[in-house]
Amino acid sequence: MSEDTALKLNGKLWIELNGSKLVGPGRVELLERIRDCGSIRQAALQMNMSYRQAWQMIEDMNTRLDAPVVISQRGGKGGGNAVVTEKGEMVIVEFKSFYKKFQQFLSKQSGSINL
Amino acid sequence: MSEDTALKLNGKLWIELNGSKLVGPGRVELLERIRDCGSIRQAALQMNMSYRQAWQMIEDMNTRLDAPVVISQRGGKGGGNAVVTEKGEMVIVEFKSFYKKFQQFLSKQSGSINL
Repeated sequence: MSEDTALKLNGKLWIELNGSKLVGPGRVELLERIRDCGSIRQAALQMNMSYRQAWQMIEDMNTRLDAPVVISQRGGKGGGNAVVTEKGEMVIVEFKSFYKKFQQFLSKQSGSINL
Repeated sequence: MSEDTALKLNGKLWIELNGSKLVGPGRVELLERIRDCGSIRQAALQMNMSYRQAWQMIEDMNTRLDAPVVISQRGGKGGGNAVVTEKGEMVIVEFKSFYKKFQQFLSKQSGSINL
């Protein structure tokens, strides 16, 4: 097949805990948006997901890891606010590091597709 | 988190052509089963998919690559038969090679998860 044909490797990556998904690109984006805007509700809106869906993702990580990734308070002036914890920062940094290596793997291997 | 906690990286891998999926683990398994049993229908049955679904997967690869991966004949004694071509063998071998490297990547990186 001619060299300009766009054959490439692609894929998905996530971290599992005890065999089920714990952290993937969507959850990391959610954490980053919560960190940047201080609100689960706002972060959910930005990602076109429901508050309930976002809250469940956070709650899943909070309960399955040995420390919470986000601490949130309901009510108060201007609604609740949410803070990404040190553990949450670790999740962001670590997943992004794996993801970068994964992109490098895909890019390197794509060069040797010969179909 | 304690060292015996089962945190690991996992993922999916596929080959794209012009931005859409061309070959993944399912299609490779289908090709291998066709090669082993000589029948798209039998291979589909073994994988709990419809003949139509299997045929569409094969047809998609046949038309998008520069040579067919399977050549099939309808009817005749005992129904049609199907042969995996040299191109089909290349698809199997190449994808499995990428997939093995991907598993090695996942396994190696899993060792450095620290959450």
